[in-house]
Amino acid sequence: MVMKVHASLMSPPALRVCAALYEKDLEFEFINVNVQSGENREEPVLAINPFGQIPAFEDGDLKLFESRAITRYIAHAYKDKGTPLICEGKPMATVGVWMEVEAHQFDPAATKLQCELVFKWMNGEAADAAVVEENEAKLAKVLDVYEARLSQSQYLGSDCFTLADLHHLPALTHLMGTPVKKLFDARPNVSAWVADIVARPAWAKVLARRCQR
Amino acid sequence: MVMKVHASLMSPPALRVCAALYEKDLEFEFINVNVQSGENREEPVLAINPFGQIPAFEDGDLKLFESRAITRYIAHAYKDKGTPLICEGKPMATVGVWMEVEAHQFDPAATKLQCELVFKWMNGEAADAAVVEENEAKLAKVLDVYEARLSQSQYLGSDCFTLADLHHLPALTHLMGTPVKKLFDARPNVSAWVADIVARPAWAKVLARRCQR
Repeated sequence: MVMKVHASLMSPPALRVCAALYEKDLEFEFINVNVQSGENREEPVLAINPFGQIPAFEDGDLKLFESRAITRYIAHAYKDKGTPLICEGKPMATVGVWMEVEAHQFDPAATKLQCELVFKWMNGEAADAAVVEENEAKLAKVLDVYEARLSQSQYLGSDCFTLADLHHLPALTHLMGTPVKKLFDARPNVSAWVADIVARPAWAKVLARRCQR
Repeated sequence: MVMKVHASLMSPPALRVCAALYEKDLEFEFINVNVQSGENREEPVLAINPFGQIPAFEDGDLKLFESRAITRYIAHAYKDKGTPLICEGKPMATVGVWMEVEAHQFDPAATKLQCELVFKWMNGEAADAAVVEENEAKLAKVLDVYEARLSQSQYLGSDCFTLADLHHLPALTHLMGTPVKKLFDARPNVSAWVADIVARPAWAKVLARRCQR
């Protein structure tokens, strides 16, 4: 039975899950959920995720939600397929640290900036300059740490591309089309890392799928 | 070489790490970090965590930060000691979902409520009633989902106590001493789950350590 992803291609967490599936060369069915009409708060999503959020994921009988739990499952369950995305033992502990850094340091600022500069723009709304300024300052501090880390390690979690990098892809792609790009451009290691990971063929497949719609 | 935890016993994330170590019956050295005087932004913490936050953790050469990455490492590296805390395969995927729920649904509201009702109170400051009201409403919605989940499963992630439960312990203990307790008391499954997990001997050891200081 083919895996099912209930999501919207406008949802950064949903794109994260699609990226992991393409990295693993896995077939999946993408079931579009119209968030604006509230389909995420109805069946079949609500039966999978009681919080009524996307993405919701099915692999046979197994039903999962929360994008980072889904990508972790995909990486472990299909570890012999496609890109490894994880490692084992102590190196995995370090990858785990940088996965948490993405979730708790990078993502809060990146999400607010995407909301102000991408999603509001799409809806014809003006960005709140104070929110942008505050979160650019937060993001800059995170990127300073990334710059130092990427001078010692080819990727954030290890010398291989892992989930710790992959989880950044939706926000990076969105923010590269905004003035926030300057924060990345000003840091050579960060900038090279972004260029490297957004150019991955699996990510190109995710973006191509979005263009088809 | 004994493991080292650089932290403060007032830090909820630090208590999470101590709980995991006691569940595993592991010896560790607790090195107190005075956050109020800014010791977290100095060595040795800064060499472990470039964000200058606690807890910072050492197991021999391995240096980790971010509390949930540390507990995951402890659970995997010492899986044959003490309480399992994790499982494998598809059941672990479901535990992973509920670990993400703690981090992204429960913790944001619980952290704001602890800040307003516990930490401000300790400093003799008044709570912001609007922030309390907003986050009580958010927490209530999360606890509605927990109530339903705990009618089907003895613990959040599975029928065994895992990291998905353990990560809640610091916030639960703090909030039980505030008016927010009513939100837990009003939900019988949640209430029984709280009573069960806060009574664990490993958690009693964490609290006893705090009382000694």
